[in-house]
Amino acid sequence: MAKLALLGGGGFAKEVAEVAGLIGHTIDSYFADKPGNSPLRHRGYLEELKQAKGDYDGVALGIGGVSRKSQEIRHRLIGWLDDNAIRCLPIVSPRAVICKGAIVEDGAFIAHNVVVAVDARIGRFSLLNTNAIIGHDTILEQNVAVSPLAFIGGNAKIGRNSLIGASANILQGVTIGENVVIGISCTVLGPVAANKTILPQLKRA
Amino acid sequence: MAKLALLGGGGFAKEVAEVAGLIGHTIDSYFADKPGNSPLRHRGYLEELKQAKGDYDGVALGIGGVSRKSQEIRHRLIGWLDDNAIRCLPIVSPRAVICKGAIVEDGAFIAHNVVVAVDARIGRFSLLNTNAIIGHDTILEQNVAVSPLAFIGGNAKIGRNSLIGASANILQGVTIGENVVIGISCTVLGPVAANKTILPQLKRA
Amino acid sequence: MAKLALLGGGGFAKEVAEVAGLIGHTIDSYFADKPGNSPLRHRGYLEELKQAKGDYDGVALGIGGVSRKSQEIRHRLIGWLDDNAIRCLPIVSPRAVICKGAIVEDGAFIAHNVVVAVDARIGRFSLLNTNAIIGHDTILEQNVAVSPLAFIGGNAKIGRNSLIGASANILQGVTIGENVVIGISCTVLGPVAANKTILPQLKRA
Repeated sequence: MAKLALLGGGGFAKEVAEVAGLIGHTIDSYFADKPGNSPLRHRGYLEELKQAKGDYDGVALGIGGVSRKSQEIRHRLIGWLDDNAIRCLPIVSPRAVICKGAIVEDGAFIAHNVVVAVDARIGRFSLLNTNAIIGHDTILEQNVAVSPLAFIGGNAKIGRNSLIGASANILQGVTIGENVVIGISCTVLGPVAANKTILPQLKRA
Repeated sequence: MAKLALLGGGGFAKEVAEVAGLIGHTIDSYFADKPGNSPLRHRGYLEELKQAKGDYDGVALGIGGVSRKSQEIRHRLIGWLDDNAIRCLPIVSPRAVICKGAIVEDGAFIAHNVVVAVDARIGRFSLLNTNAIIGHDTILEQNVAVSPLAFIGGNAKIGRNSLIGASANILQGVTIGENVVIGISCTVLGPVAANKTILPQLKRA
Repeated sequence: MAKLALLGGGGFAKEVAEVAGLIGHTIDSYFADKPGNSPLRHRGYLEELKQAKGDYDGVALGIGGVSRKSQEIRHRLIGWLDDNAIRCLPIVSPRAVICKGAIVEDGAFIAHNVVVAVDARIGRFSLLNTNAIIGHDTILEQNVAVSPLAFIGGNAKIGRNSLIGASANILQGVTIGENVVIGISCTVLGPVAANKTILPQLKRA
């Protein structure tokens, strides 16, 4: 398999590295704006990665998508990777279920126990976290982050850079625009326009 | 394994066909009131299925249970299948976990990553969608549809033709009557009488 | 593997016994304050277990953690097991995913389809029920019960004897004190002090 450079040094990067290892890739160093507490070797950040890219078969994007801010960082890094023609393989857990006809594009990350139903399309650099479910024929554009236990019904469409929070539910057939944030545990029954934020209701003690 | 006729031509039918294929069944044609965009051969609808039933070892019911209306359609089709003495095997994903002592009756469909706990009973033609959980000793009567990520606690009982929405939670020990609809993401802590509808609270932007 | 005494005679005890069997342990008898309808042999309760402990390699704690009361019972039984120097192995489903660097302490029970992310720590006698997710670097202290489909984000910390209800969501980084009860389907976005109870909002018909 491939020798990959890990871009990111936090907890999500550890999860990406674990899955990459399970499917036979080798990761022995990472690039981040500052050193983390990773056992891997810190080799600097973007300038150093640009210099060193010949040492690797590709890059694994290890920045999580947990907020509007982190989605924007991911968006910028994807642009940088594309500008520098750096290849990013999809990284898919062997414990995920990718059904017949489903397409997983380059740079996508799919965590343990995710189910991608028949004929769904997971766009470039989209991130499906643990136990997320993507319904049949659903389309995720580039850099959509789907958090753990989130459910997206069949025939839905999620625009680029949008974030679906943990345990959120998107009804079948719903269209969500670009740069949307759906908060943790929210339920969405109809279309959501680009750039909107849907917040969860707080439960009181 | 068996050669099955698929009844239904939409997205859910594709999911049923995929699982049936994974466990070794053969499906090469479907029956629906109108042709869909399936790669399988459309052979007509109920009259044609009645004529052709000798060509198959049984039928896989590929109509999803996502609304009161679709549950009623499933109910009528089950009656038609019974009237015509057509056999419907249970179709259970190899990625589901069916625990010791659990019973899965004819016609039931169990999707990927479902867990059916010890000594639960899944009634005829009940439908457990992706990552649904059925607790120990719980009884689902005929044609209960349990949507993705729904949780039904132990020692519960769900009446025939009822629908449990995606990510809904039914507390342990609760009894739900026939023809009930529990909406997406609803939490149910006590008994629900027959024919009731429980609606989700909407989250606002 | 080991010969275990099962402590508890209800539905959860059946689930623990099933998983113990899947990983090669032998359970042929149980101890409970009164006989249940288990096919196993009822050998009495704590006095009898104390007498008979030499017959077993250890004890599997088969009392579920579904309420403040049952968590208190588990807490007292754990104290009794410790006082009597009875060993309790962790019991982990072969269908769970325990990621690299994660630690599962003695007496913990991990059900089917659970995911414990990298470098998480599951404290003594903690109980992770079906499809629960524990984020990276998260710490569960002793006797934390995490119900089915609950999600605990990365870098969280849950205090001893606390109960996280089914489908509840705990945001990443949140600290929850000891003896807390988070109700079914609740979403928690900030710290919760010791001994608090967070109740779900009811959905109306």
